[in-house]
Amino acid sequence: MPQQADCVFCKIVAGQIPSAKVFEDDACIAFLDIGPLADAHLLIVPKEHYERITDMPALEFAAVTLRIPQLARAVMEVSGAEGLNVLQNNGQVSGQAVPHVHIHIIPRRQGDGLGYRWNAGKYPEGKLQQLQRALAGALGT
Amino acid sequence: MPQQADCVFCKIVAGQIPSAKVFEDDACIAFLDIGPLADAHLLIVPKEHYERITDMPALEFAAVTLRIPQLARAVMEVSGAEGLNVLQNNGQVSGQAVPHVHIHIIPRRQGDGLGYRWNAGKYPEGKLQQLQRALAGALGT
Repeated sequence: MPQQADCVFCKIVAGQIPSAKVFEDDACIAFLDIGPLADAHLLIVPKEHYERITDMPALEFAAVTLRIPQLARAVMEVSGAEGLNVLQNNGQVSGQAVPHVHIHIIPRRQGDGLGYRWNAGKYPEGKLQQLQRALAGALGT
Repeated sequence: MPQQADCVFCKIVAGQIPSAKVFEDDACIAFLDIGPLADAHLLIVPKEHYERITDMPALEFAAVTLRIPQLARAVMEVSGAEGLNVLQNNGQVSGQAVPHVHIHIIPRRQGDGLGYRWNAGKYPEGKLQQLQRALAGALGT
């Protein structure tokens, strides 16, 4: 299991730093965020060190995300929240504080002041089709 | 394949409403959001109708998320972004606008004014351990 000596999440995976762990399997661990946005704010972390999901093989990522529905149900039950955000940040510009892939499960309630800054735009004429072609090209679809 | 007659994403899956589709397999489709937060903002949608991830069987969810790394790489390549947020909202309170599970891939750049409202708190004495026990109980771990 590749570990980075200076990575706080690798140290949590290895048990060198304590965490409020609630789940573990071969692919991932889940523990409570100690700087929570809401009670029961959970982190799911692949055991292997990858900085971004774009670095991860598909099956390794799916082995982690496989656990999200059951972990999300437990967070809903324990928090009594009305909803959830599942958030995963890649790169410092995106808000990623620890450069080891992690997925946030964030319980939501009316008036909690959380959520994504939703500043939606509109594509100028032709741009949507241009991006569609470029993405299809990149994906080979 | 369960379809909801009044669901806009079920209609896109069925081809009854056009979309700028870039990927499709047995489990999901991916298309450009027409109200983008950034150029190449992508949506990944399970073909089957579920309102929330907490309603989804683990393997069905993993069959969708399996595609996230390759789709995220294509979005990075085409957008030239510095980072990405992967966001999935459950419930109106969380910002979910269409009640059919969907995953946002949102390209990020310095100064774009996007991102999650990060208003982190701290648990009072004993609360972390109480939540850890409750979650472990809910998960049977």
